[in-house]
Amino acid sequence: MTDRPHLVGAWEARVVTLLPQTFPGMLGASLVGKALQDGLWRLEPIDLRSFGEGRHRNVDDTPAGGGAGMVLRADIVDRALVHAAEGTPADRARWPVVHLSPRGRRFDQQMAQRWSQTDGITLLCGRFEGVDQRVLDAHAVEEVSLGDFVMTGGEIAAQAMIDSTVRLLPGVLGNAASTVEESHSDGLLEHPHYTRPAEWLGMAIPDVLLSGNHAAIAAWRRDRAEELTRERRPDLWHAHETRALHEEE
Amino acid sequence: MTDRPHLVGAWEARVVTLLPQTFPGMLGASLVGKALQDGLWRLEPIDLRSFGEGRHRNVDDTPAGGGAGMVLRADIVDRALVHAAEGTPADRARWPVVHLSPRGRRFDQQMAQRWSQTDGITLLCGRFEGVDQRVLDAHAVEEVSLGDFVMTGGEIAAQAMIDSTVRLLPGVLGNAASTVEESHSDGLLEHPHYTRPAEWLGMAIPDVLLSGNHAAIAAWRRDRAEELTRERRPDLWHAHETRALHEEE
Repeated sequence: MTDRPHLVGAWEARVVTLLPQTFPGMLGASLVGKALQDGLWRLEPIDLRSFGEGRHRNVDDTPAGGGAGMVLRADIVDRALVHAAEGTPADRARWPVVHLSPRGRRFDQQMAQRWSQTDGITLLCGRFEGVDQRVLDAHAVEEVSLGDFVMTGGEIAAQAMIDSTVRLLPGVLGNAASTVEESHSDGLLEHPHYTRPAEWLGMAIPDVLLSGNHAAIAAWRRDRAEELTRERRPDLWHAHETRALHEEE
Repeated sequence: MTDRPHLVGAWEARVVTLLPQTFPGMLGASLVGKALQDGLWRLEPIDLRSFGEGRHRNVDDTPAGGGAGMVLRADIVDRALVHAAEGTPADRARWPVVHLSPRGRRFDQQMAQRWSQTDGITLLCGRFEGVDQRVLDAHAVEEVSLGDFVMTGGEIAAQAMIDSTVRLLPGVLGNAASTVEESHSDGLLEHPHYTRPAEWLGMAIPDVLLSGNHAAIAAWRRDRAEELTRERRPDLWHAHETRALHEEE
Protein backbone atom coordinates (compact mmCIF):
# COMPACT_ATOMS: atom_id res chain seq x y z
CA MET A 1 0.00 0.00 0.00
CA THR A 2 3.04 2.28 -0.23
CA ASP A 3 1.57 3.92 -3.32
CA ARG A 4 -1.56 5.06 -1.41
CA PRO A 5 -0.12 6.88 1.58
CA HIS A 6 -3.41 8.69 2.33
CA LEU A 7 -5.25 5.51 3.28
CA VAL A 8 -3.74 5.45 6.76
CA GLY A 9 -5.22 8.26 8.81
CA ALA A 10 -7.50 9.49 6.04
CA TRP A 11 -10.43 11.64 7.17
CA GLU A 12 -13.42 9.42 7.88
CA ALA A 13 -17.18 9.88 8.06
CA ARG A 14 -19.20 7.31 10.02
CA VAL A 15 -22.90 7.60 9.35
CA VAL A 16 -25.45 5.96 11.67
CA THR A 17 -28.58 5.48 9.57
CA LEU A 18 -31.64 3.32 8.92
CA LEU A 19 -30.89 3.64 5.19
CA PRO A 20 -27.26 2.44 4.91
CA GLN A 21 -27.95 1.29 1.34
CA THR A 22 -28.37 4.93 0.24
CA PHE A 23 -24.64 5.55 0.81
CA PRO A 24 -22.37 6.58 -0.81
CA GLY A 25 -25.18 7.80 -3.14
CA MET A 26 -24.20 11.16 -4.58
CA LEU A 27 -20.94 10.97 -2.62
CA GLY A 28 -19.80 8.21 -4.98
CA ALA A 29 -20.01 10.58 -7.97
CA SER A 30 -17.72 13.26 -9.32
CA LEU A 31 -14.56 14.49 -7.59
CA VAL A 32 -15.70 13.52 -4.10
CA GLY A 33 -16.39 9.97 -5.30
CA LYS A 34 -13.04 9.78 -7.02
CA ALA A 35 -11.34 10.93 -3.80
CA LEU A 36 -13.23 8.17 -1.93
CA GLN A 37 -11.95 5.57 -4.40
CA ASP A 38 -8.45 7.00 -4.11
CA GLY A 39 -8.53 6.67 -0.33
CA LEU A 40 -8.34 10.43 0.36
CA TRP A 41 -11.26 9.96 2.74
CA ARG A 42 -13.30 7.06 4.09
CA LEU A 43 -17.01 6.42 4.52
CA GLU A 44 -18.57 3.89 6.89
CA PRO A 45 -22.36 3.64 6.94
CA ILE A 46 -23.52 1.98 10.20
CA ASP A 47 -26.90 0.24 10.07
CA LEU A 48 -28.93 1.45 13.06
CA ARG A 49 -31.43 -1.37 12.47
CA SER A 50 -28.77 -3.98 13.34
CA PHE A 51 -28.80 -2.65 16.93
CA GLY A 52 -32.59 -3.00 17.18
CA GLU A 53 -34.48 -5.39 19.45
CA GLY A 54 -36.63 -8.43 18.87
CA ARG A 55 -37.65 -10.22 15.75
CA HIS A 56 -38.42 -6.95 13.94
CA ARG A 57 -35.27 -5.20 15.19
CA ASN A 58 -37.33 -2.38 16.67
CA VAL A 59 -35.45 0.90 17.08
CA ASP A 60 -38.21 3.33 18.05
CA ASP A 61 -41.25 3.80 20.25
CA THR A 62 -44.11 6.29 20.71
CA PRO A 63 -43.25 9.69 22.23
CA ALA A 64 -43.63 10.04 26.02
CA GLY A 65 -46.49 12.49 26.55
CA GLY A 66 -48.17 11.55 23.25
CA GLY A 67 -48.15 13.12 19.84
CA ALA A 68 -47.47 12.18 16.24
CA GLY A 69 -44.54 10.16 14.94
CA MET A 70 -42.01 7.98 16.69
CA VAL A 71 -38.85 8.54 18.73
CA LEU A 72 -35.57 6.63 18.32
CA ARG A 73 -34.85 4.83 21.62
CA ALA A 74 -31.96 5.93 23.84
CA ASP A 75 -30.72 2.38 24.50
CA ILE A 76 -30.66 1.42 20.81
CA VAL A 77 -28.98 4.63 19.63
CA ASP A 78 -26.50 4.25 22.52
CA ARG A 79 -25.36 0.86 21.19
CA ALA A 80 -24.90 2.28 17.68
CA LEU A 81 -22.91 5.26 18.98
CA VAL A 82 -20.70 3.02 21.17
CA HIS A 83 -19.99 0.93 18.07
CA ALA A 84 -19.35 4.06 15.96
CA ALA A 85 -16.89 5.38 18.58
CA GLU A 86 -14.54 2.37 18.33
CA GLY A 87 -11.03 3.51 17.53
CA THR A 88 -11.96 7.22 17.46
CA PRO A 89 -10.55 9.93 19.77
CA ALA A 90 -12.87 10.83 22.68
CA ASP A 91 -12.04 14.53 22.19
CA ARG A 92 -15.05 16.01 20.42
CA ALA A 93 -12.83 18.68 18.85
CA ARG A 94 -10.90 15.94 17.04
CA TRP A 95 -13.95 13.80 16.22
CA PRO A 96 -17.34 15.56 16.44
CA VAL A 97 -20.43 13.44 17.06
CA VAL A 98 -23.36 15.15 15.36
CA HIS A 99 -27.11 14.65 15.23
CA LEU A 100 -28.62 16.09 12.07
CA SER A 101 -31.66 18.03 13.22
CA PRO A 102 -33.50 21.22 12.26
CA ARG A 103 -33.11 22.15 15.96
CA GLY A 104 -29.36 22.37 15.65
CA ARG A 105 -26.87 25.11 14.94
CA ARG A 106 -26.78 25.90 11.23
CA PHE A 107 -24.10 24.26 9.13
CA ASP A 108 -21.91 26.79 7.33
CA GLN A 109 -18.58 27.15 5.55
CA GLN A 110 -16.73 27.80 8.83
CA MET A 111 -18.09 24.52 10.22
CA ALA A 112 -17.04 22.67 7.04
CA GLN A 113 -13.56 24.16 7.42
CA ARG A 114 -13.41 23.10 11.08
CA TRP A 115 -14.61 19.58 10.30
CA SER A 116 -12.09 19.23 7.47
CA GLN A 117 -9.35 19.67 10.08
CA THR A 118 -10.59 16.89 12.38
CA ASP A 119 -9.67 13.18 12.20
CA GLY A 120 -13.24 12.39 11.22
CA ILE A 121 -16.85 12.70 12.25
CA THR A 122 -19.84 10.60 13.29
CA LEU A 123 -23.20 11.68 11.88
CA LEU A 124 -26.44 10.33 13.41
CA CYS A 125 -29.30 10.52 10.93
CA GLY A 126 -32.75 10.81 12.49
CA ARG A 127 -35.97 9.59 10.93
CA PHE A 128 -39.48 9.86 12.36
CA GLU A 129 -39.97 12.56 15.00
CA GLY A 130 -36.62 12.58 16.72
CA VAL A 131 -34.14 10.98 19.07
CA ASP A 132 -34.52 10.43 22.82
CA GLN A 133 -32.85 13.46 24.44
CA ARG A 134 -31.04 11.36 27.06
CA VAL A 135 -28.77 9.61 24.58
CA LEU A 136 -27.87 12.94 22.98
CA ASP A 137 -26.90 14.23 26.44
CA ALA A 138 -25.01 11.05 27.44
CA HIS A 139 -22.83 11.10 24.32
CA ALA A 140 -22.28 14.87 24.18
CA VAL A 141 -23.88 14.90 20.75
CA GLU A 142 -23.82 18.26 18.96
CA GLU A 143 -26.99 19.11 17.01
CA VAL A 144 -26.41 20.60 13.57
CA SER A 145 -29.01 21.73 11.05
CA LEU A 146 -28.64 21.98 7.29
CA GLY A 147 -30.99 24.97 7.35
CA ASP A 148 -34.38 26.26 8.43
CA PHE A 149 -36.39 23.53 6.74
CA VAL A 150 -37.50 19.99 7.46
CA MET A 151 -36.61 16.83 5.55
CA THR A 152 -37.86 13.26 5.85
CA GLY A 153 -34.54 12.21 7.37
CA GLY A 154 -30.96 13.22 8.01
CA GLU A 155 -29.35 11.27 5.16
CA ILE A 156 -29.41 13.98 2.47
CA ALA A 157 -28.17 16.50 5.04
CA ALA A 158 -25.33 14.13 5.92
CA GLN A 159 -24.37 13.88 2.25
CA ALA A 160 -24.46 17.67 1.86
CA MET A 161 -22.22 18.24 4.90
CA ILE A 162 -19.79 15.46 3.94
CA ASP A 163 -19.52 16.82 0.36
CA SER A 164 -18.90 20.32 1.67
CA THR A 165 -16.22 19.07 4.10
CA VAL A 166 -14.47 16.54 1.85
CA ARG A 167 -13.91 19.05 -0.96
CA LEU A 168 -11.76 21.05 1.49
CA LEU A 169 -9.46 18.07 2.24
CA PRO A 170 -6.02 18.32 0.62
CA GLY A 171 -5.88 16.82 -2.88
CA VAL A 172 -9.63 16.41 -3.41
CA LEU A 173 -10.19 19.36 -5.76
CA GLY A 174 -7.77 19.57 -8.64
CA ASN A 175 -7.30 23.31 -8.50
CA ALA A 176 -6.91 24.42 -4.90
CA ALA A 177 -7.27 28.09 -5.86
CA SER A 178 -10.93 27.64 -6.68
CA THR A 179 -11.91 27.22 -3.01
CA VAL A 180 -10.49 30.65 -2.17
CA GLU A 181 -12.50 32.90 -4.52
CA GLU A 182 -15.93 31.30 -4.11
CA SER A 183 -18.99 32.51 -2.21
CA HIS A 184 -18.73 32.53 1.60
CA SER A 185 -14.96 32.00 1.64
CA ASP A 186 -14.38 35.72 2.21
CA GLY A 187 -17.82 36.56 3.60
CA LEU A 188 -19.14 37.87 0.26
CA LEU A 189 -21.31 36.27 -2.42
CA GLU A 190 -19.48 35.50 -5.62
CA HIS A 191 -19.45 37.88 -8.62
CA PRO A 192 -21.30 36.90 -11.86
CA HIS A 193 -19.56 34.64 -14.37
CA TYR A 194 -19.28 34.88 -18.15
CA THR A 195 -17.68 32.77 -20.86
CA ARG A 196 -17.69 32.48 -24.66
CA PRO A 197 -19.56 33.26 -26.87
CA ALA A 198 -18.64 36.94 -26.39
CA GLU A 199 -22.10 37.92 -27.61
CA TRP A 200 -25.18 35.81 -27.08
CA LEU A 201 -28.76 36.80 -27.94
CA GLY A 202 -27.55 40.39 -28.25
CA MET A 203 -26.03 40.31 -24.75
CA ALA A 204 -22.29 40.98 -24.58
CA ILE A 205 -19.77 40.00 -21.93
CA PRO A 206 -18.91 43.17 -19.95
CA ASP A 207 -15.98 44.93 -21.73
CA VAL A 208 -13.75 45.05 -18.69
CA LEU A 209 -13.58 41.24 -18.52
CA LEU A 210 -12.15 41.15 -22.04
CA SER A 211 -9.72 44.06 -21.44
CA GLY A 212 -6.81 41.99 -20.15
CA ASN A 213 -6.39 44.58 -17.37
CA HIS A 214 -6.09 42.33 -14.32
CA ALA A 215 -6.41 45.09 -11.73
CA ALA A 216 -9.56 46.45 -13.41
CA ILE A 217 -11.04 42.93 -13.63
CA ALA A 218 -10.33 42.27 -9.94
CA ALA A 219 -11.92 45.62 -9.01
CA TRP A 220 -15.00 44.97 -11.16
CA ARG A 221 -15.47 41.52 -9.62
CA ARG A 222 -15.05 42.90 -6.12
CA ASP A 223 -17.64 45.64 -6.82
CA ARG A 224 -20.17 43.14 -8.20
CA ALA A 225 -19.60 40.78 -5.26
CA GLU A 226 -20.21 43.62 -2.80
CA GLU A 227 -23.26 44.82 -4.73
CA LEU A 228 -24.78 41.32 -4.83
CA THR A 229 -24.11 40.76 -1.14
CA ARG A 230 -25.69 44.14 -0.20
CA GLU A 231 -28.80 43.38 -2.28
CA ARG A 232 -29.37 39.73 -1.47
CA ARG A 233 -27.88 39.22 1.96
CA PRO A 234 -27.95 42.34 4.15
CA ASP A 235 -26.97 40.09 7.10
CA LEU A 236 -23.72 39.01 5.45
CA TRP A 237 -23.05 42.55 4.27
CA HIS A 238 -23.45 43.93 7.78
CA ALA A 239 -21.01 41.30 9.14
CA HIS A 240 -18.59 42.14 6.34
CA GLU A 241 -18.74 45.88 7.05
CA THR A 242 -18.23 45.31 10.77
CA ARG A 243 -15.19 43.15 10.07
CA ALA A 244 -13.71 45.72 7.69
CA LEU A 245 -14.17 48.43 10.33
CA HIS A 246 -12.36 46.36 12.96
CA GLU A 247 -9.47 45.71 10.60
CA GLU A 248 -9.09 49.46 9.99
CA GLU A 249 -8.88 50.25 13.71
CA MET B 1 -55.13 4.47 -14.98
CA THR B 2 -58.34 5.33 -13.12
CA ASP B 3 -56.92 3.82 -9.94
CA ARG B 4 -54.00 6.28 -9.91
CA PRO B 5 -55.73 9.66 -10.19
CA HIS B 6 -52.65 11.55 -8.97
CA LEU B 7 -50.56 10.65 -12.01
CA VAL B 8 -52.16 13.34 -14.14
CA GLY B 9 -51.11 16.76 -12.91
CA ALA B 10 -48.86 15.42 -10.17
CA TRP B 11 -46.21 17.84 -8.91
CA GLU B 12 -43.05 17.47 -10.96
CA ALA B 13 -39.36 18.22 -10.50
CA ARG B 14 -37.20 18.59 -13.61
CA VAL B 15 -33.51 18.56 -12.81
CA VAL B 16 -30.94 19.79 -15.35
CA THR B 17 -27.68 18.11 -14.37
CA LEU B 18 -24.39 16.67 -15.62
CA LEU B 19 -24.98 13.72 -13.27
CA PRO B 20 -28.45 12.44 -14.28
CA GLN B 21 -27.47 8.92 -13.16
CA THR B 22 -27.35 10.11 -9.52
CA PHE B 23 -31.15 10.58 -9.53
CA PRO B 24 -33.42 9.60 -7.88
CA GLY B 25 -30.63 8.65 -5.42
CA MET B 26 -31.86 9.27 -1.89
CA LEU B 27 -35.19 10.46 -3.33
CA GLY B 28 -35.92 6.84 -4.31
CA ALA B 29 -35.81 5.75 -0.65
CA SER B 30 -38.29 5.91 2.20
CA LEU B 31 -41.64 7.74 2.07
CA VAL B 32 -40.57 10.16 -0.66
CA GLY B 33 -39.48 7.25 -2.85
CA LYS B 34 -42.71 5.39 -2.19
CA ALA B 35 -44.67 8.50 -3.18
CA LEU B 36 -42.62 8.68 -6.40
CA GLN B 37 -43.51 5.07 -7.21
CA ASP B 38 -47.16 5.77 -6.37
CA GLY B 39 -47.22 8.71 -8.80
CA LEU B 40 -47.82 11.37 -6.12
CA TRP B 41 -44.96 13.33 -7.70
CA ARG B 42 -42.73 12.99 -10.75
CA LEU B 43 -39.01 13.35 -11.33
CA GLU B 44 -37.33 14.04 -14.66
CA PRO B 45 -33.54 14.29 -14.72
CA ILE B 46 -32.39 16.14 -17.86
CA ASP B 47 -28.85 15.40 -19.04
CA LEU B 48 -27.11 18.73 -19.65
CA ARG B 49 -24.30 16.91 -21.49
CA SER B 50 -26.72 15.88 -24.25
CA PHE B 51 -27.01 19.59 -25.23
CA GLY B 52 -23.24 19.98 -25.46
CA GLU B 53 -21.25 20.65 -28.61
CA GLY B 54 -18.77 18.69 -30.65
CA ARG B 55 -17.38 15.24 -30.28
CA HIS B 56 -16.86 15.68 -26.52
CA ARG B 57 -20.22 17.36 -25.98
CA ASN B 58 -18.55 20.37 -24.39
CA VAL B 59 -20.77 22.38 -22.05
CA ASP B 60 -18.31 24.81 -20.48
CA ASP B 61 -15.45 27.17 -21.19
CA THR B 62 -12.89 29.24 -19.27
CA PRO B 63 -14.16 32.32 -17.39
CA ALA B 64 -14.03 35.65 -19.23
CA GLY B 65 -11.47 37.76 -17.39
CA GLY B 66 -9.53 34.70 -16.20
CA GLY B 67 -9.50 32.79 -12.94
CA ALA B 68 -9.88 29.22 -11.71
CA GLY B 69 -12.53 26.72 -12.79
CA MET B 70 -14.93 26.68 -15.69
CA VAL B 71 -18.24 28.36 -16.56
CA LEU B 72 -21.29 26.64 -18.07
CA ARG B 73 -21.99 28.24 -21.44
CA ALA B 74 -25.08 30.42 -21.98
CA ASP B 75 -26.00 28.82 -25.33
CA ILE B 76 -25.76 25.25 -24.01
CA VAL B 77 -27.70 25.93 -20.80
CA ASP B 78 -30.29 27.83 -22.88
CA ARG B 79 -31.01 24.71 -24.96
CA ALA B 80 -31.43 22.60 -21.83
CA LEU B 81 -33.78 25.15 -20.23
CA VAL B 82 -35.86 25.45 -23.41
CA HIS B 83 -36.20 21.66 -23.40
CA ALA B 84 -37.05 21.64 -19.67
CA ALA B 85 -39.76 24.28 -20.21
CA GLU B 86 -41.76 22.15 -22.66
CA GLY B 87 -45.34 21.80 -21.43
CA THR B 88 -44.77 23.93 -18.32
CA PRO B 89 -46.54 27.22 -17.49
CA ALA B 90 -44.48 30.34 -18.28
CA ASP B 91 -45.66 31.94 -15.02
CA ARG B 92 -42.69 31.61 -12.64
CA ALA B 93 -45.10 31.62 -9.67
CA ARG B 94 -46.64 28.40 -10.99
CA TRP B 95 -43.37 26.82 -12.12
CA PRO B 96 -40.20 28.33 -10.61
CA VAL B 97 -36.94 27.95 -12.54
CA VAL B 98 -34.12 27.80 -10.03
CA HIS B 99 -30.34 27.78 -10.19
CA LEU B 100 -28.81 26.15 -7.11
CA SER B 101 -26.05 28.48 -6.03
CA PRO B 102 -24.49 29.66 -2.77
CA ARG B 103 -25.14 33.18 -4.14
CA GLY B 104 -28.88 32.67 -3.96
CA ARG B 105 -31.59 33.41 -1.43
CA ARG B 106 -31.55 30.81 1.31
CA PHE B 107 -33.96 27.91 1.03
CA ASP B 108 -36.28 27.64 4.04
CA GLN B 109 -39.53 26.04 5.16
CA GLN B 110 -41.61 28.92 3.72
CA MET B 111 -40.02 28.34 0.32
CA ALA B 112 -40.72 24.60 0.56
CA GLN B 113 -44.35 25.40 1.37
CA ARG B 114 -44.57 27.80 -1.57
CA TRP B 115 -43.00 25.31 -3.96
CA SER B 116 -45.32 22.53 -2.76
CA GLN B 117 -48.22 24.65 -4.03
CA THR B 118 -46.83 25.08 -7.55
CA ASP B 119 -47.34 22.76 -10.54
CA GLY B 120 -43.67 21.85 -10.45
CA ILE B 121 -40.18 23.23 -10.59
CA THR B 122 -37.05 23.18 -12.76
CA LEU B 123 -33.75 22.98 -10.91
CA LEU B 124 -30.49 23.78 -12.70
CA CYS B 125 -27.52 22.13 -10.98
CA GLY B 126 -24.20 23.90 -11.48
CA ARG B 127 -20.81 22.25 -11.40
CA PHE B 128 -17.42 23.90 -11.79
CA GLU B 129 -17.34 27.64 -11.09
CA GLY B 130 -20.74 28.76 -12.23
CA VAL B 131 -23.18 29.55 -15.01
CA ASP B 132 -22.94 32.36 -17.57
CA GLN B 133 -24.97 35.23 -16.09
CA ARG B 134 -26.71 36.02 -19.41
CA VAL B 135 -28.67 32.77 -19.55
CA LEU B 136 -29.80 33.25 -15.94
CA ASP B 137 -31.07 36.71 -16.90
CA ALA B 138 -32.69 35.57 -20.17
CA HIS B 139 -34.72 32.81 -18.48
CA ALA B 140 -35.61 34.78 -15.33
CA VAL B 141 -33.85 32.14 -13.28
CA GLU B 142 -34.14 32.55 -9.50
CA GLU B 143 -30.97 31.75 -7.54
CA VAL B 144 -31.53 29.71 -4.37
CA SER B 145 -28.93 28.53 -1.89
CA LEU B 146 -29.11 25.55 0.44
CA GLY B 147 -27.10 27.51 2.98
CA ASP B 148 -23.91 29.47 3.59
CA PHE B 149 -21.55 26.74 2.44
CA VAL B 150 -20.14 25.44 -0.83
CA MET B 151 -20.62 21.99 -2.37
CA THR B 152 -19.03 20.34 -5.42
CA GLY B 153 -22.32 20.68 -7.31
CA GLY B 154 -26.01 21.41 -7.03
CA GLU B 155 -27.26 17.83 -7.09
CA ILE B 156 -27.32 17.15 -3.33
CA ALA B 157 -28.94 20.56 -2.78
CA ALA B 158 -31.58 19.67 -5.38
CA GLN B 159 -32.33 16.42 -3.54
CA ALA B 160 -32.58 18.24 -0.21
CA MET B 161 -35.02 20.84 -1.59
CA ILE B 162 -37.11 18.25 -3.43
CA ASP B 163 -37.33 16.05 -0.31
CA SER B 164 -38.37 19.03 1.78
CA THR B 165 -41.02 20.07 -0.75
CA VAL B 166 -42.40 16.64 -1.64
CA ARG B 167 -43.06 15.70 1.99
CA LEU B 168 -45.53 18.61 2.12
CA LEU B 169 -47.57 17.31 -0.85
CA PRO B 170 -50.93 15.79 0.09
CA GLY B 171 -50.73 12.07 0.85
CA VAL B 172 -46.94 11.76 1.00
CA LEU B 173 -46.55 11.56 4.78
CA GLY B 174 -48.83 9.08 6.51
CA ASN B 175 -49.69 11.29 9.45
CA ALA B 176 -50.33 14.85 8.30
CA ALA B 177 -50.27 16.13 11.88
CA SER B 178 -46.55 15.53 12.13
CA THR B 179 -45.72 18.40 9.76
CA VAL B 180 -47.50 20.88 12.00
CA GLU B 181 -45.62 20.41 15.30
CA GLU B 182 -42.09 20.20 13.94
CA SER B 183 -39.25 22.73 14.00
CA HIS B 184 -39.71 25.85 11.82
CA SER B 185 -43.41 25.21 11.16
CA ASP B 186 -44.38 27.73 13.86
CA GLY B 187 -41.10 29.66 13.92
CA LEU B 188 -39.77 27.79 16.97
CA LEU B 189 -37.33 24.90 17.30
CA GLU B 190 -38.89 21.67 18.42
CA HIS B 191 -39.00 20.55 22.08
CA PRO B 192 -36.91 17.52 23.22
CA HIS B 193 -38.28 14.01 22.71
CA TYR B 194 -38.38 11.01 25.03
CA THR B 195 -39.62 7.45 24.75
CA ARG B 196 -39.38 4.18 26.69
CA PRO B 197 -37.48 2.98 28.68
CA ALA B 198 -38.76 5.37 31.38
CA GLU B 199 -35.37 5.27 33.07
CA TRP B 200 -32.11 4.81 31.18
CA LEU B 201 -28.62 5.02 32.67
CA GLY B 202 -30.16 6.67 35.74
CA MET B 203 -31.85 9.34 33.60
CA ALA B 204 -35.65 9.49 33.86
CA ILE B 205 -38.20 10.85 31.40
CA PRO B 206 -39.47 14.20 32.83
CA ASP B 207 -42.45 13.43 35.15
CA VAL B 208 -44.87 15.77 33.40
CA LEU B 209 -44.65 13.74 30.15
CA LEU B 210 -45.89 10.65 32.02
CA SER B 211 -48.63 12.55 33.92
CA GLY B 212 -51.38 12.15 31.35
CA ASN B 213 -52.19 15.85 31.85
CA HIS B 214 -52.44 17.06 28.26
CA ALA B 215 -52.52 20.77 29.08
CA ALA B 216 -49.45 20.46 31.32
CA ILE B 217 -47.62 18.44 28.63
CA ALA B 218 -48.42 21.03 25.95
CA ALA B 219 -47.24 23.85 28.26
CA TRP B 220 -44.00 22.00 29.10
CA ARG B 221 -43.27 21.38 25.42
CA ARG B 222 -44.00 25.00 24.54
CA ASP B 223 -41.67 26.21 27.30
CA ARG B 224 -38.86 23.92 26.18
CA ALA B 225 -39.34 24.96 22.53
CA GLU B 226 -39.14 28.64 23.51
CA GLU B 227 -36.12 28.02 25.75
CA LEU B 228 -34.26 26.12 23.00
CA THR B 229 -35.05 28.78 20.42
CA ARG B 230 -33.87 31.59 22.73
CA GLU B 231 -30.61 29.75 23.46
CA ARG B 232 -29.72 28.44 20.05
CA ARG B 233 -31.30 30.83 17.58
CA PRO B 234 -31.67 34.38 18.89
CA ASP B 235 -32.55 35.42 15.31
CA LEU B 236 -35.61 33.13 15.19
CA TRP B 237 -36.58 34.11 18.74
CA HIS B 238 -36.48 37.81 17.86
CA ALA B 239 -38.71 37.21 14.81
CA HIS B 240 -41.07 35.13 16.96
CA GLU B 241 -41.34 37.86 19.62
CA THR B 242 -41.95 40.54 17.00
CA ARG B 243 -44.72 38.45 15.45
CA ALA B 244 -46.34 37.80 18.83
CA LEU B 245 -46.29 41.56 19.56
CA HIS B 246 -48.00 42.36 16.25
CA GLU B 247 -50.69 39.78 16.92
CA GLU B 248 -51.45 41.38 20.30
CA GLU B 249 -51.85 44.84 18.81
